[in-house]
Amino acid sequence: MSEPLGIALVGCGTVGGGVADLLLRHRDRLSSRAGRPLVLRRVVVRDPSKPRDVAIPRELLTADPGEALRDPSVHVVVELIGGTGAAKAIVLAALAAGKHVVTANKALLAEAGYELFEAARRAERVVCFEAAVAGGVPIIRALGESLAANQITAIQGILNGTSNFILTAMAERGMTYAAALAEAQRLGYAEADPTLDVDGSDAAHKLAVLAQIAFGVAARPDEIERQGIDNLDPMDIRFAHELGYTIKLLAEAWTGQGTGKRDRDPADPDERSPTDHRQPDPTDDPTPTVALHVAPVLLRHTDLLAQVRGAYNAILVHGDVVGETLYQGPGAGRGPTASSVVADLIDLAVGRAQRTFAAARLWSPPARRGELATRTVYTVAPAERVRSRFYLRLLVADKPGVLADITRILADQGISISSVVQHEAAEDGTGPVPLVIVTHYAETGRFKAALGRINALPVVAVPAVFYSMGD
Amino acid sequence: MSEPLGIALVGCGTVGGGVADLLLRHRDRLSSRAGRPLVLRRVVVRDPSKPRDVAIPRELLTADPGEALRDPSVHVVVELIGGTGAAKAIVLAALAAGKHVVTANKALLAEAGYELFEAARRAERVVCFEAAVAGGVPIIRALGESLAANQITAIQGILNGTSNFILTAMAERGMTYAAALAEAQRLGYAEADPTLDVDGSDAAHKLAVLAQIAFGVAARPDEIERQGIDNLDPMDIRFAHELGYTIKLLAEAWTGQGTGKRDRDPADPDERSPTDHRQPDPTDDPTPTVALHVAPVLLRHTDLLAQVRGAYNAILVHGDVVGETLYQGPGAGRGPTASSVVADLIDLAVGRAQRTFAAARLWSPPARRGELATRTVYTVAPAERVRSRFYLRLLVADKPGVLADITRILADQGISISSVVQHEAAEDGTGPVPLVIVTHYAETGRFKAALGRINALPVVAVPAVFYSMGD
Repeated sequence: MSEPLGIALVGCGTVGGGVADLLLRHRDRLSSRAGRPLVLRRVVVRDPSKPRDVAIPRELLTADPGEALRDPSVHVVVELIGGTGAAKAIVLAALAAGKHVVTANKALLAEAGYELFEAARRAERVVCFEAAVAGGVPIIRALGESLAANQITAIQGILNGTSNFILTAMAERGMTYAAALAEAQRLGYAEADPTLDVDGSDAAHKLAVLAQIAFGVAARPDEIERQGIDNLDPMDIRFAHELGYTIKLLAEAWTGQGTGKRDRDPADPDERSPTDHRQPDPTDDPTPTVALHVAPVLLRHTDLLAQVRGAYNAILVHGDVVGETLYQGPGAGRGPTASSVVADLIDLAVGRAQRTFAAARLWSPPARRGELATRTVYTVAPAERVRSRFYLRLLVADKPGVLADITRILADQGISISSVVQHEAAEDGTGPVPLVIVTHYAETGRFKAALGRINALPVVAVPAVFYSMGD
Repeated sequence: MSEPLGIALVGCGTVGGGVADLLLRHRDRLSSRAGRPLVLRRVVVRDPSKPRDVAIPRELLTADPGEALRDPSVHVVVELIGGTGAAKAIVLAALAAGKHVVTANKALLAEAGYELFEAARRAERVVCFEAAVAGGVPIIRALGESLAANQITAIQGILNGTSNFILTAMAERGMTYAAALAEAQRLGYAEADPTLDVDGSDAAHKLAVLAQIAFGVAARPDEIERQGIDNLDPMDIRFAHELGYTIKLLAEAWTGQGTGKRDRDPADPDERSPTDHRQPDPTDDPTPTVALHVAPVLLRHTDLLAQVRGAYNAILVHGDVVGETLYQGPGAGRGPTASSVVADLIDLAVGRAQRTFAAARLWSPPARRGELATRTVYTVAPAERVRSRFYLRLLVADKPGVLADITRILADQGISISSVVQHEAAEDGTGPVPLVIVTHYAETGRFKAALGRINALPVVAVPAVFYSMGD
C-alpha cells in the first residue's frame, strides 16, 4: 500500500463542505482512483464549534492554520476561503511550508498568479486550480493537456452562470433585467449583492486565467475591457432576436484580428470543412496579440453557445488543428466545484499534477534565449485596435436625412454596414424611432469615434447602445 | 535539453498524414509543450514510393515495420492502420519490443482490450487511445481524469458523425434516409459502404471503450444491443417532432435502473438543483449492473444532445458528484484525430500517460482481495431486464376497439402509457392509420412480449416500430 496523501482544507463553506464530504464518505472510491489513500487531516475554519451540514470529526477542526502548516502528515493545502487577502497569505505560507496547493480562487490567480507560481517553483511544489474556472467543467485540463497539440486561436465562454440565468429568463420569458435578477436571487443563483457577477468582473477573472494557459498572456483583470448585463434593455434582446441572434454575456479571447472569431457551422453544407482549412500558423507571427473582453455579444441562434440556457457554463475553444470543441456543465455549486477540487487531489496523488505543473510553466517569465522550449507569448491587443462587428441601436427622431447622416459618419471612419432595420414609431407617431445597424468588421477605436459624432447629432434622442457580434 | 521522444507511425492515410504534418511542421511548438523534442523517426507504409499530400522525407519512409521496432531511438509506435488483424499484431509486437503504443483503433480496443493491456503491463509500457472515441473531443481524459472523483451514472453519446449528419438532414430538410445518405457520401461524410456507421457497430465499439473506463465493464461489442438508423421512416421523425422530441442515434450506458437516465434541465425553474440531489451511492450496490445500447432515441427538443447538428460528436456524462457535463466537437477527420493522437504523445513525453496508465488499471482483472484499491466492477444488465420508456408507432385499421385491444395488451405486461396520439387516416379514408403510444418506464423484455402480441393482432397492418426514449 502506498503512502497516504494528507489533505488540509482551509475554509469549509459550500465548496469546502462538499470536498470534506467526498473525502470522508467516498474514501474507498477515491483511494481506488488515486492508487493511495486520500486522507483528510485538518479542516481550518473560523469557528470550530459552529454546527455544519457535513459531519466532520471534531478532532479535525481547528481555527489555527498553523496546525495544518506544521503537520508533516499534511501534503496538500486546499484554499477555499476566497478573496485576495487572507487567501494569498495562506497559499504563500503553505508553499513555504512545503505543501502543494489546490485552489478554486480565480480572483487570486488573476491578481497574483506570477507571485504564487514563482513561490511554488521556488518551493518545488505545485498549484492546481481546475475548480477556479467554470466549476465542474474541466476546461483547465482541456486547454492545458487535451488540446496541447494546438495553438488556440479563439475562446468564447459563458463563464458566469448568474448572468446566463438572467439572460435566459429575459429572452425566453420576456422579463426585465430587474425581475430576472430578483428571481435569480430568490432561487439562490444570485447573491444579495450581484455586482461582480452581472458587471463582468467575475468572468474577467476567469478569462485572465484561461488566457494565461492558452496564450501565455499576462493580462491583469483591470486590463480586460468589460461591459455587464445590468443595463441591458429588453428592446435589444427583441431586436437581436428578429435579426436571428441571441445575446449572451461572453468572455472572449481571439487572435488573428479581422479573420473572424470563429469557423462556421459544419451542419450547414455551405459552411463545411472546419477540419481541413489551413490557416496561417499563428506562432509564425513574432509579436502576436490577442484581444480580450467580457461583454454582451450577439450570437446566431444556431451557434452552440446561443443554446446554452440557465445557470450552465460553457466554453467554445478553437484550436488550429482540432477546430472547435465545446465544454459545458454546471459552473458553480457544491458538487460541481468539489468534483474539480478532488480531481486535482487525485492528480497530485497519482503524480500527474507535478508533471503538468513543470511542463506548462504557467505564470512564468518567457524562456531565456538558448533554452529549447520558447513559448509563444502573446500580448493583449490595445482595446481601440481590436476588430469586431458591432450591433448599434439608436433612438432617433423620425425625420428625413437621419439615416443618411448616421451612415455618412460611419463611412467617414471606414466602417461599412451589414444590415439596417428601422423599427416603427410609437402609435401616435411622435417620440423617437428605434434604428438598428449591424456593421462589418471595424476597429473598436474607429467605431467609438463614429459613435461620439453620432451621439452629438441633434436627432439622436439618447446615447446609442452597442454590442459586439460573436462572428 | 531533455532526451527526445522518438516516434514511429504505422499507417499514413488521412490521420497518419495529419500526425506526420504536425510533427514535422510544428516541432518547436510541440517541443515547448512537451518539454523535450518529439521526433518523427519512421513512417511505415505499404508503398513508400506512392505520392502523398504531406511532404515526408524519403528516408523516414519504409515498408518494413521491423525497422521501426528494432530502432532503439523509437520510443512510441502510433498504430493508424485500423482493423483488428494486422493492427493487433503490430501493437503486440511494438509492446514486446519495449515501445509505448498510441492508437485510434476503437475496434481493436473493444475486441482485444484485455489482451493488449495485459501485454502492455507485462512489458511495462503503456497504451494511449484518446483518438479512438469521438476524434478531437477529449472524452477519454474527461472520464478517466477530470471526473475521477465521480461514480459515473450515465453516458449518452452521439458517437457517429455520419449518422448524425444523416439524421440532421432528415429532420431539418425533410429528406428520406436514402437521399440524406447520398448527400453524406457526396460530401465525404459517409463511405461508399456505410454499413458500420449507420447500423450502430462503430458507435458500439466506442461505447465499449467508454464503458470500460466509466464502469470497468467487460462488454464485448457483440453483447451491446444495437439498432441502426437505416430503417428510420421520416414519418417517425415527424411524429416525434410533434410530441416535442428529436431522434438521435445514441450510444447509452446507464445505471440505477428505473430512476431515469438523467437529471432534468436546470434552465427550467421547476426542474432545478441538479447539484444538490443525494442519490444513493451506486458503489454501495455489491453487484451493480449497467445497461448498454446503441439505438435511435427520442430526446426532448431542449435536451443538449438534441441540439447537436451535422457531423459533430457529443457526449453527455452524468457523475454522482458533478451532475451533467457535455463534451462536443468534430468526431473524425485529419485535424481533430491528429490533435488527439499528438496530445497522447505529449502526455507520454511529459510522463503523465505512464502515471495514468498505472492508476487506471483499465482492462485488468478486478483487484485481488486484500489489495487496497478494489474497483467497483459493473456487469452488463441483460437486455431484456433493461428499463426504458418507449415510443411505439403502429399502422392500424381504423376500426372501433383497436386502441382498447392494444392498451389492454400493454396493461397485461404491467406497462402504463404516458401519451397516445392517433393520426388522421389517408384522405380517402381507407388504408391504415398511424397510432403513436409513448410508455412509462418498462422492462424491455416485457415490452417486447407485448409487442409480439400486438403485432399478431389482425388490425395491425405492418410490424410495429419502436424506439427508446432519452429520459
